[in-house]
Amino acid sequence: MMLQNDLLLRAARGEAVERTPVWLMRQAGRILKEYREIRNRISGFKALVETPELAAEVTIQPVDILGVDAAIIFSDILVVPEAMGLPYRMIEKKGPWFDETIRSKADLKRLCVPDPEAELGYVTEAIRCTKKALNGRVPVIGFAGAPWTIFSYMVEGQGTKTFATARKMLYTEPGLSHQVLDMITETTIAYLKAQIAAGADMVQLFDSWAGILPAEQYRNFGSRYLKRICAEIQEVPVTVFAKGAWFALDDIAEMDCRTVGLDWHLQPEMARKKLGNDKTLQGNLDPCMLYADDEALVNATHQMLKRFGPRRHIANLGHGVYPDVDAAKVKLFVETVKAYKQ
Amino acid sequence: MMLQNDLLLRAARGEAVERTPVWLMRQAGRILKEYREIRNRISGFKALVETPELAAEVTIQPVDILGVDAAIIFSDILVVPEAMGLPYRMIEKKGPWFDETIRSKADLKRLCVPDPEAELGYVTEAIRCTKKALNGRVPVIGFAGAPWTIFSYMVEGQGTKTFATARKMLYTEPGLSHQVLDMITETTIAYLKAQIAAGADMVQLFDSWAGILPAEQYRNFGSRYLKRICAEIQEVPVTVFAKGAWFALDDIAEMDCRTVGLDWHLQPEMARKKLGNDKTLQGNLDPCMLYADDEALVNATHQMLKRFGPRRHIANLGHGVYPDVDAAKVKLFVETVKAYKQ
Repeated sequence: MMLQNDLLLRAARGEAVERTPVWLMRQAGRILKEYREIRNRISGFKALVETPELAAEVTIQPVDILGVDAAIIFSDILVVPEAMGLPYRMIEKKGPWFDETIRSKADLKRLCVPDPEAELGYVTEAIRCTKKALNGRVPVIGFAGAPWTIFSYMVEGQGTKTFATARKMLYTEPGLSHQVLDMITETTIAYLKAQIAAGADMVQLFDSWAGILPAEQYRNFGSRYLKRICAEIQEVPVTVFAKGAWFALDDIAEMDCRTVGLDWHLQPEMARKKLGNDKTLQGNLDPCMLYADDEALVNATHQMLKRFGPRRHIANLGHGVYPDVDAAKVKLFVETVKAYKQ
Repeated sequence: MMLQNDLLLRAARGEAVERTPVWLMRQAGRILKEYREIRNRISGFKALVETPELAAEVTIQPVDILGVDAAIIFSDILVVPEAMGLPYRMIEKKGPWFDETIRSKADLKRLCVPDPEAELGYVTEAIRCTKKALNGRVPVIGFAGAPWTIFSYMVEGQGTKTFATARKMLYTEPGLSHQVLDMITETTIAYLKAQIAAGADMVQLFDSWAGILPAEQYRNFGSRYLKRICAEIQEVPVTVFAKGAWFALDDIAEMDCRTVGLDWHLQPEMARKKLGNDKTLQGNLDPCMLYADDEALVNATHQMLKRFGPRRHIANLGHGVYPDVDAAKVKLFVETVKAYKQ
């Protein structure tokens, strides 16, 4: 099926674009009242993730309502540890919770490298539903968590401030850590390939906890696995978003990915210098700028577009949009990008 | 009173030292069973902070038990918002909690710039007790939170993952934000001067949430207030520890402080280049390295000392020591620094 709007993919590949494409991390979600209506009809976040027709519906909402240039499949990075053997629950106001964790060699028996179509078929089915309903209007982005971030949740069993237990394991059990990271990596490659087979036009890797590791540790336990995934996924453009990993830009430069997501700390000029001219940069407005008044938001968006320039840029925030942001502000951000003339 | 061990102060001033001084952030606390014994005898963390004799006792414990080159007064950065009008509670396993917060102009009526001897006399009294009991064995470090970090707690009322409400206020109410930051700054200057008058030989400013702001926002709402405090405190050496603020090193270079604390992401060479030769660097071993085996810990400590070099370095971790670390490992870290020959 031909895409009517392929700005995102052309920007990712470094081809000429009429204007900078724009989408937002977490655009499918609580910022939209249309999402909240569906969410209130169903018992729990996970039920929504696991019901392909509804997941597809909320995936498409921001395309209809906000006019973004891409849909990102509504899902969660934690479906991967679950498919590998560690079920999770989403506790209201607390976040994710795993009853079982990986702390020792003996815990490895809980883990497998699953067949993604068998264990994560609800995600690939949601992608197929989305593709069908979108009918080529915009590309669909698939995604997965980066191995280090998934490993952190598997070890900690929840979000924490310091992830000290997961970081401790890298020092006390490096062999076991690599074994688990290896299994996550294999699962992730198969999972992304299944998403692509189902129709994902691009995929993004989220390394949400990249910023907690010292540079040497991240090289050893973080970026090496991202490199392997990037090398294996050649079917569609890959985006690597390693939040907080300003110290790892040299490593990221070596990854075979088309696009690099930048958090709101990274200066475009610094990122461009470190990453070279063969990668597209994605980002990176401070998500809190969407709380500002319209004029300040428009000015900041213009400034961002000017600094990144007209080529090899995909406009986005530097992190997921915060759930209490006014949808009108998000729309203003999107429209400002779309109207901008370089 | 003459100090018998003034390595810390000489290192801070850039004078020659026989060896690198060493202490640890959070050295007075749960890592020591002697601390936990006292903590269990008293009802709550705050009671301990507010009882000068006991606060002094736990302040001195790491000097006796671990052999560190400095005592840091046992207290909390949140005593400042409390003294300004916002009482806090410390909830077990949850962290700090404020019943009242600053969200609007009307909330300003809750705040005052207090007389530190009247409102925070338990801290200055704890310093006097500590000085007396130490009898010149090692210097005593006083401290306070940086205005931006204190502001974050005042607005949020608790620790959060994104501090989005506090960051939002910088965009929506910049005038009010500056007004509050200004009051915190005035309070902090008076508070640090009171600590110095009570005997603190050095003071440290903790900007725990520096790393959450975009560079421009941090310049405007964070580092400018740190600069003012540094300019006002000339009696003793000042240390600025802005965690996660790698993007603000140029601003920190301009502060009139003697020492800069580095988190575990910053490479000593990069920090030295950005900060110049007139500042002492403090840090920055990964706190999780204390979970590693002895050989790895000793090697990493040696490597750190080698990279920082023999002058203008104070050995420490890149963050507070984690409470579940074995005290024997902390002692090994301290002894390794003390035995090292450059």
